[in-house]
Formats: sequence, structure tokens, C-alpha cells
Amino acid sequence: MSGSFATTPEPPYYAVIFSSRRTAVDGGYGAVADRMIELAARQPGFLGIESARDADGFGITVSYWASLADIASWKANGEHRIAQATGKQKWYEAYEVRIARVERALQGP
Amino acid sequence: MSGSFATTPEPPYYAVIFSSRRTAVDGGYGAVADRMIELAARQPGFLGIESARDADGFGITVSYWASLADIASWKANGEHRIAQATGKQKWYEAYEVRIARVERALQGP
Repeated sequence: MSGSFATTPEPPYYAVIFSSRRTAVDGGYGAVADRMIELAARQPGFLGIESARDADGFGITVSYWASLADIASWKANGEHRIAQATGKQKWYEAYEVRIARVERALQGP
Repeated sequence: MSGSFATTPEPPYYAVIFSSRRTAVDGGYGAVADRMIELAARQPGFLGIESARDADGFGITVSYWASLADIASWKANGEHRIAQATGKQKWYEAYEVRIARVERALQGP
């Protein structure tokens, strides 16, 4: 799911900026990451997702949501919670999550 | 400058989320990208930057700023304006810029 732009509505809406450094552990990471995108896309308020990861394991995923309540619901999703716990234990050396309100957007060129 | 976390203060602050797909054109891209990071880091209100790009050319760069006025000043910077124009002409097949107010942040694991 990396490598594509999200088609989002006019602001305001919300962004979850997830920056992470992967460990060298695979352990099903790719399949779970794909599944989480599939699952997120079915949640209420999901607007889109963009993701990129360097060859050295540093990555940024930004998901877009209609409201803070939608983000909270997604965070609390049972299957997502299991993935979050596995991520902490195995897949991520470090990460940072930022929740932000998108106020302006423009496209180019 | 890819592959590292930004050390940002407690929210609120602002994020510029720049998603882009590169063309196959090099034309000095790497040197200018590095120079822009160096220059941004000297601007008032700069808080940090994170960047990742896939092997297929899709990338996300998020820069963090103290205020919307600081973002506007950086956008208007002369050398940055030249880089922006060159980016539109040569380096980016497509891009999207979103300006967002970071409201919450957490680190892990």
C-alpha cells in the first residue's frame, strides 16, 4: 500500500502521523501491515492513507480521518490492538505517533 | 536526512506533511534536498523534520514548526522558492502539501 496518494476531502480533517524505525524482525510484519490498511479502510471516518519506508527501515505512515472520535475507535479496534502490541514487542525499534488537525491542503505541480 | 526522528516539544505545534512522487530526473535533486533541510533548520520556529522515500519514488517528508507564520516565512524564503519552482518543473511528478496542527504526540515502544 506504499507509494500512493490519499484522496482526501477539503480540510478540516485529522491526520495520524506514525513515524517508525523497524527492527530486523520480520515475523509476519508485511501481512499484518497490509491487513491493518484493509481493516482501517473499513472503519467509520477513514479518509485515506499514505506510506513510505526507506531502505534503512525508517518509515512514515499518515492516515487521514474525519474526526478524533474515529481515530479513537480505530485505535481501540480489537484486531488493531493485537497488531499494536505485536509492533511494540517485535517490529518497531522506536516510533512516534502524532495526531494533527489538517487545516490546509494543496496539490501540485 | 532521511531515517531519523524529530525531537519535538509538547504540542501544540504545526506540521507540514509533504507527500510526493519523484520523476526519474535527477538534476541536482539530492544536493538541493539536503540544502533545503540545512536551510529550514536555521529558520525561526523550525522544530524538526522527518523523511522517508520508497524505492519506487513515493516519499513523505514532515517538517514541524512553532507557528503558521513560521511556515509562511519558510515558504517565502528566496532560495526555497527557487527550489520549489525547480521541484514543480523537474523533480516531482505529483505532490500534496498539508498543513496541520499537532494536538497530541506519544512515543514508543
